[in-house]
Amino acid sequence: MNLSVYFTPLGVTDQTIAGSPVVVVDVLRTTTTIVSALANGARAILPVASAEEALRLAQNLEHPDLLLAGERGSKRIDGFALGNSPLEMTEDVVAGKTLVMATTNGTPALVAAGSGAPVLIGAVTNFTAVAARARAELDLCGKLTILCSGREGMFALEDAYCAGRIAQVLVPGRDRRGVELNDGAIAALQLVRRYGDRWKRGVGASAAARDLKQAGFKPDLEFATGADTHSVVPVYRDRHVTVTES
Amino acid sequence: MNLSVYFTPLGVTDQTIAGSPVVVVDVLRTTTTIVSALANGARAILPVASAEEALRLAQNLEHPDLLLAGERGSKRIDGFALGNSPLEMTEDVVAGKTLVMATTNGTPALVAAGSGAPVLIGAVTNFTAVAARARAELDLCGKLTILCSGREGMFALEDAYCAGRIAQVLVPGRDRRGVELNDGAIAALQLVRRYGDRWKRGVGASAAARDLKQAGFKPDLEFATGADTHSVVPVYRDRHVTVTES
Repeated sequence: MNLSVYFTPLGVTDQTIAGSPVVVVDVLRTTTTIVSALANGARAILPVASAEEALRLAQNLEHPDLLLAGERGSKRIDGFALGNSPLEMTEDVVAGKTLVMATTNGTPALVAAGSGAPVLIGAVTNFTAVAARARAELDLCGKLTILCSGREGMFALEDAYCAGRIAQVLVPGRDRRGVELNDGAIAALQLVRRYGDRWKRGVGASAAARDLKQAGFKPDLEFATGADTHSVVPVYRDRHVTVTES
Repeated sequence: MNLSVYFTPLGVTDQTIAGSPVVVVDVLRTTTTIVSALANGARAILPVASAEEALRLAQNLEHPDLLLAGERGSKRIDGFALGNSPLEMTEDVVAGKTLVMATTNGTPALVAAGSGAPVLIGAVTNFTAVAARARAELDLCGKLTILCSGREGMFALEDAYCAGRIAQVLVPGRDRRGVELNDGAIAALQLVRRYGDRWKRGVGASAAARDLKQAGFKPDLEFATGADTHSVVPVYRDRHVTVTES
C-alpha cells in the first residue's frame, strides 16, 4: 500500500498519479470554496489555471448560468462576479450556476491532478467525508496521493497539516506495517503530532492564515477551520468539479 | 529575527535572499561531496546547473588542474573524471584541483542561492561547524535562510531533517520568542522531534537513501550520515565554492 503526500504540484507528473486516486487540498481557500459552492447548489466548477483562461472559456461557453470566480493576491479578479471566499458561495448566489474559477494556487493544483481517478476535493469543512472516501479509494486501489496546492510553488503549512490529518485517518499510527509512505507523508504526519486535532492551531500557524487576516479575510479563516460543515465530496473529472461522479 | 527553510529552490527568488545569509543543504550527496573535496585540498568547486554547462565551462577555462565531476540518476556523467561521491574526493585525486560540478539537485540549488551573502555549504559531515557559522551570521543579519535542494522540485526528507537540525541550533526550543519561523521552518523543526539527534534514522528514512542503497552507494550513505568528519564551512561566492571567503 502506497500513500504519498506532495506539498506542491511542481514535479508531480501524470506518471505519478494517472489512474490512481488523488485528494487535492487547498485549505486557504480554493478547495474550501469549492466545497461550499457545491454544497450550496452550484451545478459545477470549471477550474482553470489563469484568469485569462477563465475569460476565454466563459466567452466560448456563453452560458447564462455561468459565473466567473477567482482571486489574485487574495483579492477578487477585476470583472469577475465572485472572488475566492467560501462565504460568498451562498445558495442564492450559486444555486444552479456553473462557476469558472481561477485562483493562484488551488485551481492550478486541480488541473495538475487531472489524470488521477478519482480526483477528490478535500478541505477541513468536508474532512470526515473526504477522508472516508479516500480510505475507500485507497483500499480499492492500494495507492493514494494527497496533493497540496502550496503557495506559488512552495510548502504551505495549512495544506500539509490537512494532508497529515487525512493521512492519519488512512493509516493510523498503530497500523502502518506494509504501508509505504513517501517523504512528504512522513513529514505531514509529523505535523499532526504537533497540532493534534486542533484545526485552528495547525492552520492558524501558517503564513497564509496570517496574510488572509491582514487582507481582511478573518471570517474566511474562521470558516475554513471549522470541521465538517459539509458532507459533500466534490470530484474533478473531465475538467468539471461536481458532487457526483457522472 | 527571521528564520526560513525552503524545501526546494523553486519559488525562492533573489528578492527573498539577496544580501542575507543562506545555508544550502543537499545531504545526499552534493553538499557532502563538496565538503569532502575542499577538506581534502581541492582549490575550488564551480557548481553549474547542467552537464552541458560544465563541459562548456571546462572547455573555455582549459585549465590543466580542472576536473569535471557530477551525476545524473546518481551515476557519474559519461566522460566526467568524477561522479558525485564524497568517497571519491580523496586528497590524491582532488588536492590543488578545481572541480566543475553538475548534479541533479545540489548544484542548481547553489546556483539559485547565488545572491545570498554569504552562501554557506551545509552537510551532516560539517554540521557543528556550519551551524556555528550560521548562528553567527543570523546574529549579525537578523535573518537567515536554509535552502534545501530537494529532489527534482520536490520535498526531500534528508535535507528537511538536516535543515531542522541546523534550525534547532539557531533557535533552541526554549528560546523562540521574537523569532519568526516560516512554514518550512516549523515543519523542519518538527522532524527533529521525530528523529532526535539520530542522523542515520532521519536521513535513512528518506527515499533518496533507499534509492542510493539500491544504486550501490551504501558506503556514501554511511559516510554522509557521520556527523562532523570535517570542520570546514565552504562558501559559495562569485560562482566559486571555497573554504575561505576571498
